[in-house]
Amino acid sequence: MKRKEFLRGGALAFGGLLLNPFRAKANTIKEEFGSRKAKNIIFMVSDGMSSGTLNMADLYSRRKLGKPSHWISLYEESLVNRGVMDMASLNSIVTDSAAASSSWGGGKRVNNGSLNIGPNGEEYLPILQKFKKAGKKVGCVTTVPITHATPAGFCVYTKSRNSQEDIAEIYSDLGFDVMMGGGHKYFDAAQRKDKKDMYSVFRNKGYSVARNKTEMNAASKNKPLLATFDVDGLPYSADQNSSSFMKNNIPTLAEMTDKAINQMKDHRNGFVMQVEAGKVDWAAHGNDIAGLLYDQLAFDDAVKVAIDFAKKDGNTLVIITSDHGNANPGLIYGKNVNSDFDRIQKFTQTNEWILQGVNPTDSVSTIKNRIALANAGINISDDQARELLGYYSKAKMEDGVYNPRHLPFKLLADIQKAYTSVGWISMDHSADYTELAMFGPGSDKMKPFMKNTDMHTFLLKAAEVENKF
Amino acid sequence: MKRKEFLRGGALAFGGLLLNPFRAKANTIKEEFGSRKAKNIIFMVSDGMSSGTLNMADLYSRRKLGKPSHWISLYEESLVNRGVMDMASLNSIVTDSAAASSSWGGGKRVNNGSLNIGPNGEEYLPILQKFKKAGKKVGCVTTVPITHATPAGFCVYTKSRNSQEDIAEIYSDLGFDVMMGGGHKYFDAAQRKDKKDMYSVFRNKGYSVARNKTEMNAASKNKPLLATFDVDGLPYSADQNSSSFMKNNIPTLAEMTDKAINQMKDHRNGFVMQVEAGKVDWAAHGNDIAGLLYDQLAFDDAVKVAIDFAKKDGNTLVIITSDHGNANPGLIYGKNVNSDFDRIQKFTQTNEWILQGVNPTDSVSTIKNRIALANAGINISDDQARELLGYYSKAKMEDGVYNPRHLPFKLLADIQKAYTSVGWISMDHSADYTELAMFGPGSDKMKPFMKNTDMHTFLLKAAEVENKF
Repeated sequence: MKRKEFLRGGALAFGGLLLNPFRAKANTIKEEFGSRKAKNIIFMVSDGMSSGTLNMADLYSRRKLGKPSHWISLYEESLVNRGVMDMASLNSIVTDSAAASSSWGGGKRVNNGSLNIGPNGEEYLPILQKFKKAGKKVGCVTTVPITHATPAGFCVYTKSRNSQEDIAEIYSDLGFDVMMGGGHKYFDAAQRKDKKDMYSVFRNKGYSVARNKTEMNAASKNKPLLATFDVDGLPYSADQNSSSFMKNNIPTLAEMTDKAINQMKDHRNGFVMQVEAGKVDWAAHGNDIAGLLYDQLAFDDAVKVAIDFAKKDGNTLVIITSDHGNANPGLIYGKNVNSDFDRIQKFTQTNEWILQGVNPTDSVSTIKNRIALANAGINISDDQARELLGYYSKAKMEDGVYNPRHLPFKLLADIQKAYTSVGWISMDHSADYTELAMFGPGSDKMKPFMKNTDMHTFLLKAAEVENKF
Repeated sequence: MKRKEFLRGGALAFGGLLLNPFRAKANTIKEEFGSRKAKNIIFMVSDGMSSGTLNMADLYSRRKLGKPSHWISLYEESLVNRGVMDMASLNSIVTDSAAASSSWGGGKRVNNGSLNIGPNGEEYLPILQKFKKAGKKVGCVTTVPITHATPAGFCVYTKSRNSQEDIAEIYSDLGFDVMMGGGHKYFDAAQRKDKKDMYSVFRNKGYSVARNKTEMNAASKNKPLLATFDVDGLPYSADQNSSSFMKNNIPTLAEMTDKAINQMKDHRNGFVMQVEAGKVDWAAHGNDIAGLLYDQLAFDDAVKVAIDFAKKDGNTLVIITSDHGNANPGLIYGKNVNSDFDRIQKFTQTNEWILQGVNPTDSVSTIKNRIALANAGINISDDQARELLGYYSKAKMEDGVYNPRHLPFKLLADIQKAYTSVGWISMDHSADYTELAMFGPGSDKMKPFMKNTDMHTFLLKAAEVENKF
């Protein structure tokens, strides 16, 4: 018996008889990967996903759709390996998204706010540049600006995550194959400080530029693709589901993921891409349950697209994780928790939609009706409505990462708690270790506990790309 | 090559080359289990442990002790398989501890508050009774009353978890080999409604009875052992660490675990035991960070005792998990989060200790000094001290599962947040899926997602005990 055959036989026997001896059928998909190289890698990030977020999306799927979430179904079917990841940054046990993505992208912990720049100005070459140099196609898709921290940490090094106009310009020099998300304002001549039309710059370098779903679908496979579908972040899935205009014009994360895969999958040397559900994080910052839940479910749909492709392809490593916890939401014990949670199934709009649409001159009944409309008919009290309205007269103010208008997101979440049984520890990131799952060639090499920076080397090794750049 | 040898070779090759091909050394301990039977099972429950609780205990170990927690070290060394567990009860997506333990113990989901009694009065035989009938020694150790929900769910069926005096009486008929924890008042003639001296009942049935650490250590291996070390729950580890009297008289969870193993390990047919850190849950109900963190660390020490034994023994399956989330605590992003978290390292007493020791007539400076003493010198404001004192004059009241005196646990946690960066979503259980790790023979059979009731069959199958009772 040749060594390779022996190993293969051993692996199959181990998987069939030892890994799952209570199961009649061997777990063939998982075992087929053997020690194969990962030609392609799809790295999927639900940004700011605490364990309760994953839990609620799965509960929603089971209770509303009668099946587990795609992510958890991979666990049920023993198709993936599971771990937790320590995402601390160089200067804090609680990371921001820039340092988090940099830890994977550049392989070094940096201070919060930095993108692959060390404390003494060291520049760490991001992983998509390494893979590009190794001959692969590379790309990013996200529901926040494509210039935002999480995609940027895989693409560039720059001192500040906030220089998104600069990042758009750096992108134009990289020659990456797919860049899709929001962030029109960082490319648009009218909105950029330097009045430079970045779309022309990309077009002149041979890119297709798409600004809506139709243009995305029409984009040629033979040209690199830049797409921005909204001014800043894309709409929340909950709001988009309630708007046929948005549905017609803006692709879902799953649709973007599918398009990106199709743009790159036939490349001889394979591809590496990052897929980010960036607004899961924004929703957690806003304690916005409809925003959080439906964007996590949209991420879950993108997981299905990636896994379906990887199953068929056989040479694709899919990594599914988060970059940090945020707000640690959870369903709280109580006699109404089941019906409260099921009520959220009927929420049709986010708190973002509710609060952005209130005017300082609105009446108590107007705001009450608006909340009832968005939140399955809940009937907040007149006093609660008045308290919310108080924020619009600038008497009271809330701060928050994605709350420039100081709207009462926290107050609204506190009011909703009586109807949803959902609680939040804060409006910011948490130190919780993040969930990590891997499918495909290389996934067996994962340890159940992983330090964020080890991911960088792991990806290169899984793809057998030398870390020489 | 014989089939068994082939499998063994395959397993070793798989582990050495495929599971961990980036590691030079094969993972010998884990692979040695092969398809061996679990002669012994140690089932370890950190009650009410959310993911943030596990995270903070590990961060504490790394930052203060310079090494990972024992639990997480099992992940780092790839010695265990990891999963999540869906702990829902029959009537709620958020379980209580009785229904949770029943799901494992009796293999059926029951309504919250029930112990292995179905909705129509069905009686589900608990797993330790099954293992006892199969010839094994069995036992429970816990830091809460030994009659409390989590041990009881492995031992008895009874309509209500609250009938702890009845449960003590049922225990006396079971003939189990080790029962250790708190709960003196449920055995003590003076405190029982029926004035029955349960200790005499146990002694007459051949038990050793221990009421302190010395008596526990002296207990003979040849007799079954009942031990109650305190009136109700045992002291929190944080408070015990600050009291030489408590340290001398009351064993730690690790010491109880060690004693219990030694009482049962030489039994020809093996043993099955449950180890519970019950006060992790109580601390979470009280949003009591010192209570939570140090009791989780005490649980972690018990994990080490169990794993050390299992490594040496080679025939012991160790399961490490929680029965539900509680309060979803987490460290919150901010510029002081590192120093705030490190401050907790110097907390010497729990909030339980702080609040139980305040008198309604205390001055503002007395309560401020008490908090400074317990909490590493933090200096709360006079207004905050006055607000806390207000609760003692019965003007304000807080409720809570383990808060019969309506003390201001929530208010104190809110005040501490500015010094600890720790937030909580509530003072009750959450729906989060629980962390699950397995070490030893049978552990390879674990799927990364497990329904709580499947655990019952899993344990019986791992031990090759027929489910015929």
